[in-house]
Amino acid sequence: MRLQTIIEHIRDKKSFLCVGLDSDLNRLPSPFQKDLKSLVDFNKAIIEATAEFCVAYKINTAFYEKFGSRGWKALEKTRRALPDSHFLIADAKRGDIGNTATQYAEAFFDHLNFDAVTVAPYMGRDSIDPFLGHKGKWAIVLGITSNPGSADFQKIISADGKRVFEKVMEKAIHWGAADQMMFVCGATQSEELSIARNIAPQHFFLVPGIGHQGGNLQEVANRCMNDNIGIMVNSSRGIIFASSGQDFQEAAAGKAAELAMQMAALMK
Amino acid sequence: MRLQTIIEHIRDKKSFLCVGLDSDLNRLPSPFQKDLKSLVDFNKAIIEATAEFCVAYKINTAFYEKFGSRGWKALEKTRRALPDSHFLIADAKRGDIGNTATQYAEAFFDHLNFDAVTVAPYMGRDSIDPFLGHKGKWAIVLGITSNPGSADFQKIISADGKRVFEKVMEKAIHWGAADQMMFVCGATQSEELSIARNIAPQHFFLVPGIGHQGGNLQEVANRCMNDNIGIMVNSSRGIIFASSGQDFQEAAAGKAAELAMQMAALMK
Repeated sequence: MRLQTIIEHIRDKKSFLCVGLDSDLNRLPSPFQKDLKSLVDFNKAIIEATAEFCVAYKINTAFYEKFGSRGWKALEKTRRALPDSHFLIADAKRGDIGNTATQYAEAFFDHLNFDAVTVAPYMGRDSIDPFLGHKGKWAIVLGITSNPGSADFQKIISADGKRVFEKVMEKAIHWGAADQMMFVCGATQSEELSIARNIAPQHFFLVPGIGHQGGNLQEVANRCMNDNIGIMVNSSRGIIFASSGQDFQEAAAGKAAELAMQMAALMK
Repeated sequence: MRLQTIIEHIRDKKSFLCVGLDSDLNRLPSPFQKDLKSLVDFNKAIIEATAEFCVAYKINTAFYEKFGSRGWKALEKTRRALPDSHFLIADAKRGDIGNTATQYAEAFFDHLNFDAVTVAPYMGRDSIDPFLGHKGKWAIVLGITSNPGSADFQKIISADGKRVFEKVMEKAIHWGAADQMMFVCGATQSEELSIARNIAPQHFFLVPGIGHQGGNLQEVANRCMNDNIGIMVNSSRGIIFASSGQDFQEAAAGKAAELAMQMAALMK
């Protein structure tokens, strides 16, 4: 999907919401806990309930991969159920030497036809480059993440006073322009979000960490929004597990609509 | 597999060789390029040819994942063909927040029954911890990798003069002891290998990068061997693609035997 299309969708829908399908089988409403077929049915119900309120979907590959090839089958079926009108992200956090990264890019771009893959930067440029050569496809590089462990290495202060996540983003923006690369920047961070935006004024940020992890939508918007909106904010558990009862679909739609309304207000 | 068992196997076999099944379908000997069934047959032939010369096998998940669920099926079949007498590594380089990392640990330890998974450290402690709670299982954390991109972020000099890979290893050894954690340290590095060994005198290193990538076995041994041997050296393409002809099995066995002989000499 082209950058301009993403921006148009966000403006048309007045929403920059990404719904995360972290569909943990053990946490689904009980009728869906049966098997992987019911997991896919649950995903379809969530997609149906939320599509009008969001511009993107993010599949967390781990929740499928834990079942091996059968899980990957469910991942493929879920992918086919996703509307091409939306920006589709494989949240896989892959990262390996060039030769290997090329295979991962094939997996997610060619085989599964996702628009974007999340990529871990520790192994440097040749681990990211293979995700950049595909027309209309995106590498979403980990910048500053939302989890407690982000303090361990991403915030190491380097000899020139900058922190490691700053060094990562400063280099990466020269590898991938704003029409082929985004960054993961966690909503639980605060001044780091502003620093990230200063480093990469044009690049979109994929922002996890609102809801369950404690990040605040208003603060994210204040710190990160740019002239092209420039952010997609993800909610996973807060939407898909909004209710564990029979009303899970209405509850998911309600939560997504609520976030979209907040986003519309912030876009004014 | 317990640490003591790994050391015994290495001493018994006089080899610390790990064979990497980076079985790129397009590069297999032509009769095996047909489909994923023939890819598994190729792997079985390689395992049969090399098992006596090595103590470990490493499956690079990307080469299977590129085919989606069918590829994962081939990965599962290959795993079942691997001998439990060997240390079995999923080279997956996963890394995500705790909740997600737990799912990846289930995928590789419970579902696929590997002994170890390679793990990327960028997201910090809660991305690594879930791989440490499984008895007899191992997290192999990226320390200093073998690829050119290792210079981009792993070698950033921090405010206290240490480089990022040093900071990673210094912290990680307090999260996982030498009987549950190893480090990836690339053979193409030189003084970095000695620094890594100083930081983690007891931990095993998984060392890729000899052969195709240019690393030297003798230098790796000089810099990294400890009283428990302390290294497993991987060769992938150099062994499995030693010949693309009908003699691929003999050629693979020959290459593995040659490396094992060099290792036996270094262990004296």
